[in-house]
Amino acid sequence: MKKKIGVLPGDGIGPEVVAEGIKVLDAIASRFNHQFDYEYALVGAAAIDETGNPLPDETLAVCKQSDAFLFGAIGHPKYDNDPSAKVRPEQGLLKLRKELGLFANIRPVTAYDSLLHMSPLKVDRITGVDFVVYRELTGGIYFGEKGRTEDAAYDHCTYSYAEIERIAHLAFKAAQNRKKKLTLIDKANVLETSRLWREKVTAMAKEYPNVTLDCMFVDNAAMQMIQNPKQFDVVLTENMFGDIISDEASVIGGSMGLLPSASVGNKTAMFEPIHGSYPQATGQNIANPIATILSVAMLLDHLDLIDEAIEVRQAVNASLRNGMVTQDLSKGQGFGTDRVGDFIVNHILDGEASGSQNNI
Amino acid sequence: MKKKIGVLPGDGIGPEVVAEGIKVLDAIASRFNHQFDYEYALVGAAAIDETGNPLPDETLAVCKQSDAFLFGAIGHPKYDNDPSAKVRPEQGLLKLRKELGLFANIRPVTAYDSLLHMSPLKVDRITGVDFVVYRELTGGIYFGEKGRTEDAAYDHCTYSYAEIERIAHLAFKAAQNRKKKLTLIDKANVLETSRLWREKVTAMAKEYPNVTLDCMFVDNAAMQMIQNPKQFDVVLTENMFGDIISDEASVIGGSMGLLPSASVGNKTAMFEPIHGSYPQATGQNIANPIATILSVAMLLDHLDLIDEAIEVRQAVNASLRNGMVTQDLSKGQGFGTDRVGDFIVNHILDGEASGSQNNI
Ligand SMILES: CC(C)[C@H](C(=O)O)[C@@H](O)C(=O)O
Ligand SMILES: CC(C)[C@H](C(=O)O)[C@@H](O)C(=O)O
Repeated sequence: MKKKIGVLPGDGIGPEVVAEGIKVLDAIASRFNHQFDYEYALVGAAAIDETGNPLPDETLAVCKQSDAFLFGAIGHPKYDNDPSAKVRPEQGLLKLRKELGLFANIRPVTAYDSLLHMSPLKVDRITGVDFVVYRELTGGIYFGEKGRTEDAAYDHCTYSYAEIERIAHLAFKAAQNRKKKLTLIDKANVLETSRLWREKVTAMAKEYPNVTLDCMFVDNAAMQMIQNPKQFDVVLTENMFGDIISDEASVIGGSMGLLPSASVGNKTAMFEPIHGSYPQATGQNIANPIATILSVAMLLDHLDLIDEAIEVRQAVNASLRNGMVTQDLSKGQGFGTDRVGDFIVNHILDGEASGSQNNI
Repeated sequence: MKKKIGVLPGDGIGPEVVAEGIKVLDAIASRFNHQFDYEYALVGAAAIDETGNPLPDETLAVCKQSDAFLFGAIGHPKYDNDPSAKVRPEQGLLKLRKELGLFANIRPVTAYDSLLHMSPLKVDRITGVDFVVYRELTGGIYFGEKGRTEDAAYDHCTYSYAEIERIAHLAFKAAQNRKKKLTLIDKANVLETSRLWREKVTAMAKEYPNVTLDCMFVDNAAMQMIQNPKQFDVVLTENMFGDIISDEASVIGGSMGLLPSASVGNKTAMFEPIHGSYPQATGQNIANPIATILSVAMLLDHLDLIDEAIEVRQAVNASLRNGMVTQDLSKGQGFGTDRVGDFIVNHILDGEASGSQNNI
């Protein structure tokens, strides 16, 4: 199989972790006889430095022509203290989402048994946690009209039926393939947009009779996420609440360095570790590449390369089981970013040699 | 001293916990020779049942004429499944905040040493946690224009300079009296209102040179609240983010049943446990009265009855130390709501007898 893969390393540790992701894609290509054609492009601070634009037209074109693309991270300390600066790295990300219609951000949250001790939460609260957040990504207050009047500022939040419907279908379908529970997070006791979400999703539930729908106010959800995260299976929510709740959920497993994400739309899709550009770690070969490598697994799933995705996840599990991890996950020194990537690559290539263990 | 105290018991366990709060106020009045004149009024589902209105005019009048008022909880299961119903209990609360100009919601978050084992968080993360959240309460997306178009819904978020300034002054002053650190939570990389908050609060910081200001994006704050809650001293944020973050923070200590709040404005002020109406527990004498009793302590502080407030807090600490607690805090049976109230009342009245221990 031949596929076009866009590669947007971005800023900070982005290029380092993306390099490991590409090594893994290469290993999969070699093992399964695929051809992945990579096209690299600039985004974020790296793109501003070079072109003055956090999302140059060429980058957008690369993404549009890709079957899927891998994204590292964006952000540089020089922009941190002035969020009102005219040109900022994250504008590149927001524009990418909007222009490509990447309306659903999908974030699996898994508490790995071997890492429970790293979590800020008590072990009995999180053992077996396994859910996925569907966050709407191209609507709501992020993309509404915003501006200033003489003595005030405003942001408008809007949601249409169509925007709610398309992501809700994805979430219901995901629930059908999982534990058949969907939790809608909203603030329907205060917001009109939330009432629309609740009406629409409640009505749609009739089309998915085997899925149980639960509606939860966002303030309560922020508590439940910590009190009892095991109750969740598929979580569906709007853009702003999703930003907050999915980051909150990311602490459960004990490491941001493990969590992948997908942002999907109608055409191409984007795959991205949820961690940021982590400037302090840049160039030190200490960044955890696993979130990116698991994003590669989601990318393979998206391309319907299911066995290939399984292979990547098995290799990642082996690295965790064998303590072949970066310093964020180890009490001692930890291995370098590239060494962890090598281990995973070799595990994938070795699968080839050891024959019968393939694709279990 | 003579004071007018409004009493709005509300729904569910509201009346039960408020009854204990009033017992404590009576004990303080007797011990310190004050006169508290109570005026009771209906709010929430109780008010809808009786008058069709979640905030009858008489209730508003009672509050306006009070020096301060105690609020129980609102909400009844019969409204839970239909957030688009025309008349709902929480409209009473929202209208109360707006009509009385209660622009700052103040929520202390304390991890009590004797209760650390109850927290979903690991003990080392929370030992010594002691911060306070200042949430803006009468602006933002809660009170902006909202409505429907043919195929969409909208909510507008607006903040003026003046709205930001008045609560920011309160928060800076609180920080001056505490550990001198203020954390502003916003989403200044996306929202124009957040950029205004950050500009304004950053500029105001010059007036409070001994306070360190830290600005944090709300998604990061949702993580930090669990990863490292000890870093916070005074947290300042807008209405919607405050709703989410302060509820998230409430899980740290291990029990919602202990957390009080104040909602202050220019004239009267409201004091309210942060827990809800907890319908399942209604009438069973099992609700924890301590959140309400600590709200009474905040009420006394507000009336400048500082020694009296200390006395209440000491009595609460004694009940916690002595295991004189309701079932939510005890491994065994726990004591009844009224028994816990009695213990605290007696502790206050005994202080009188034991003379020299007063007002330590
Ligand atoms: C960088 C920022 C604009 C972005 C968002 O808020 O969506 C980030 O927090 C995320 O969740 O991907
Ligand atoms: C009941 C609801 C309207 C209210 C709010 O969102 O402000 C509540 O959650 C609170 O925090 O007091």
